[in-house]
Amino acid sequence: MYYPEPISKLIDSFTKLPGIGPKTAVRLAFFVIDMNDDDVVDFAKALVSAKRELSHCAICGHITDQETCSICQDHTRDESIICVVEDSKDVIAMEKMREFNGKYHVLHGSISPMDGIGPEDINVPSLIQRLKENDVKEIILATNPNIEGEATAMYISRLVKPSGIKATRIAHGLPVGGDLEYADEVTLAKSLEGRREL
Amino acid sequence: MYYPEPISKLIDSFTKLPGIGPKTAVRLAFFVIDMNDDDVVDFAKALVSAKRELSHCAICGHITDQETCSICQDHTRDESIICVVEDSKDVIAMEKMREFNGKYHVLHGSISPMDGIGPEDINVPSLIQRLKENDVKEIILATNPNIEGEATAMYISRLVKPSGIKATRIAHGLPVGGDLEYADEVTLAKSLEGRREL
Repeated sequence: MYYPEPISKLIDSFTKLPGIGPKTAVRLAFFVIDMNDDDVVDFAKALVSAKRELSHCAICGHITDQETCSICQDHTRDESIICVVEDSKDVIAMEKMREFNGKYHVLHGSISPMDGIGPEDINVPSLIQRLKENDVKEIILATNPNIEGEATAMYISRLVKPSGIKATRIAHGLPVGGDLEYADEVTLAKSLEGRREL
Repeated sequence: MYYPEPISKLIDSFTKLPGIGPKTAVRLAFFVIDMNDDDVVDFAKALVSAKRELSHCAICGHITDQETCSICQDHTRDESIICVVEDSKDVIAMEKMREFNGKYHVLHGSISPMDGIGPEDINVPSLIQRLKENDVKEIILATNPNIEGEATAMYISRLVKPSGIKATRIAHGLPVGGDLEYADEVTLAKSLEGRREL
């Protein structure tokens, strides 16, 4: 035992966070000791209250500290278009863009038969229910551009098709500011496939 | 405001830590929401108790949760040799080596005229006091091998010399496992200067 107990406990807690190894955890713990008292207490309170006060919106599944999230409560937004994402962080990313004025639906995962995750294990049933009860014209499938995300988008689009609701998928291609030379073959192929007339 | 308040507060707290930018802070905050309740409460408690229960050892300045640290309390250790380091983390690094059986003195900084830090601003007076009151034969100056660390070592060695106590400096040279080809000139020069007969 090199460390006094209070600090070794703190190091253990930091080590549990993603991307923080033993050396970073030690550095952070020692930093905390030198922080001012109020900041440490605020940090501790923020941890507990983030965990206790946050839950998922009853409508869309986005994180919120109320019954429904601020986006679902906002009636100036277009209710006829729903953007389906895998994660609450994706909602934040979309909102930062300030281009989309519809509603969201957070799946909290993607269909992955390899991991035994089927449509019932993620927020798909609640999405279908929502489509039935509301007058939705289009759903934008904005799941991640990987195998699971594509499979999830495909699954939902097929499920929705009979009801006449338009299902669209976000475009794949070269990221803006990217370099053709360094793009991988699949992305390049997708960007060719999705070419548009100017 | 993209985030509900409890999570934005937590993100702010994470951002205050060194080496954690806004994106990592968001990732960590969302991770905390998905952690189990007990782990989060333990984390919060560890933060507060690390801050409140830890102080500096009255003798050597190393962090401790008691009046004096476990190293100063350990009478099996050689009291006649004191290793002077800049930081509590350096004590930990030395202890991990399991080679040194003397005592420590933590300066909590180094002399840096550029930043207005003189010998009185770091733990030098308490070191001198300690040398006067105890029968110390050697002090090992293990400050960092940079300008401030060298200056601090030089200053202390001159201060101690008249009293007849031996002042030694840890060796500079190539790190074990290092590569001669990639060593910087100063390190290489130091390793040549400090060469020993085999």
